[in-house]
Amino acid sequence: MYHGIGYTVHMIGIFDSGIGGLTVVRALRAARPDLSYVYLGDTARAPYGTKSPETIRRYAEDCADFLLSKGAKAVVIACNTASSLASEHLRARHPELPIFEVVGPAVRAALAVSSTKRIGLIGTRATVGSGMYEKMLKAADPSVEVVARHAQLLISLVEEGWADEPETSSVVAKYVAPIREAGVDALILGCTHFPILKPQIAVMMGEGVALIDSAEAVVAEFRATLEKDAALEASLDRSGSASYFVTDPTPAFSKIGSAWIGAPIEVHKAEITS
Amino acid sequence: MYHGIGYTVHMIGIFDSGIGGLTVVRALRAARPDLSYVYLGDTARAPYGTKSPETIRRYAEDCADFLLSKGAKAVVIACNTASSLASEHLRARHPELPIFEVVGPAVRAALAVSSTKRIGLIGTRATVGSGMYEKMLKAADPSVEVVARHAQLLISLVEEGWADEPETSSVVAKYVAPIREAGVDALILGCTHFPILKPQIAVMMGEGVALIDSAEAVVAEFRATLEKDAALEASLDRSGSASYFVTDPTPAFSKIGSAWIGAPIEVHKAEITS
Repeated sequence: MYHGIGYTVHMIGIFDSGIGGLTVVRALRAARPDLSYVYLGDTARAPYGTKSPETIRRYAEDCADFLLSKGAKAVVIACNTASSLASEHLRARHPELPIFEVVGPAVRAALAVSSTKRIGLIGTRATVGSGMYEKMLKAADPSVEVVARHAQLLISLVEEGWADEPETSSVVAKYVAPIREAGVDALILGCTHFPILKPQIAVMMGEGVALIDSAEAVVAEFRATLEKDAALEASLDRSGSASYFVTDPTPAFSKIGSAWIGAPIEVHKAEITS
Repeated sequence: MYHGIGYTVHMIGIFDSGIGGLTVVRALRAARPDLSYVYLGDTARAPYGTKSPETIRRYAEDCADFLLSKGAKAVVIACNTASSLASEHLRARHPELPIFEVVGPAVRAALAVSSTKRIGLIGTRATVGSGMYEKMLKAADPSVEVVARHAQLLISLVEEGWADEPETSSVVAKYVAPIREAGVDALILGCTHFPILKPQIAVMMGEGVALIDSAEAVVAEFRATLEKDAALEASLDRSGSASYFVTDPTPAFSKIGSAWIGAPIEVHKAEITS
């Protein structure tokens, strides 16, 4: 299995449906520049957020298998859709593998800042449809009221580079207005693309509403886990390397990815044939 | 191969990256209700328009192979992206298979109506990037001037059911304004999703600009070809059936598909594992 003899480099594997998870890589590298990372963006099959739970689980399996084949010793699911729909499935499939996902950390961060216990969520169609955020919020505190709406179009708008266009502000307003009116005091940004729209979302939600960035939340928990888990910490490679794979390499990915990471990145093609 | 003994039902196969090609099925069935059709929407890997040429060709191969395995005797590529990037590839791979694609018919329809020989094109990022429309237009008439722009966001807006929202009109205006200003007298709607936005596009383009619907154009050529090709016509099944497959079945597909086809459709899962 993944603990086999063949593995000499123990890396942190991160996967996402596409490019958004690079924001998690950036945050991980800022927190722990000494560790080694391998990233997979499943761009040939992106987006995940409009697909069925069964298909999302199958894709997540492929992504995890690929990262393990590259020497990952722990896996971070950077994608909210895959976290919501496939993290339990992957944990059952790889019981000994440390798997970090973004839903739990965002839920804990939201509960920590909310005093009204009315919490908003925006995510992909699949993430919101899964009910996973709601289930975890209510498991932690049954009195919590969750106001969830998918905001599917925001992903396309960000990917097309329209973040600063007036149409995008208008679309943001339409999606979040019912959440603001419900009187939440925290809003979970349940998709890696949404932090890019933080300024517009903050304006629409108004003061007094905390915006929870799931990428930041998972990196904080990752860091804390390594501080507690000496065995895992000791097993990790410390060469500070990072490698980037996608299932469909395009010039756009290298360009946007380099801009987000803050340095030129070399992007390799991942062969996934299931 | 696909002419093998195993084939007893000779159907017309149609494929698209997703749901848009159902508009082609509807038009084909209106033109030739006696023939039998099998449709494949590759929803598990949609959209195609943001992906690389290599990946689009691989997906188109899979789609054609699936349709042939279901008894298709001719294949209609309903998707502009696959038509632009994979039709030559599929013809080389299946030299004896009649393959209809949407680019050629739309090009001929545009040339027939344009008197200024300034022709506009909107399509996906991949379709416009391929230069296929431009190449075919100029091959037919080197004096033609082509003004092409991708209009990638319109696909997401249509798929999210935002066709009638004011933001969509605003996005349409942004995409087509430079084409209108270039003074074209015909605009090719180079994506199956765009005819749904015909009213908004017509308003923005103004009177005197013909809108070319690639789905209508391919159906007209399909019909004309069958009139000329007696052998193909004679080989086709006449049970008037239609079956629908997708790589990722979702309730949304069945619902929207039934509305577009005008009758409830039963949607089956296609297993494609390459």
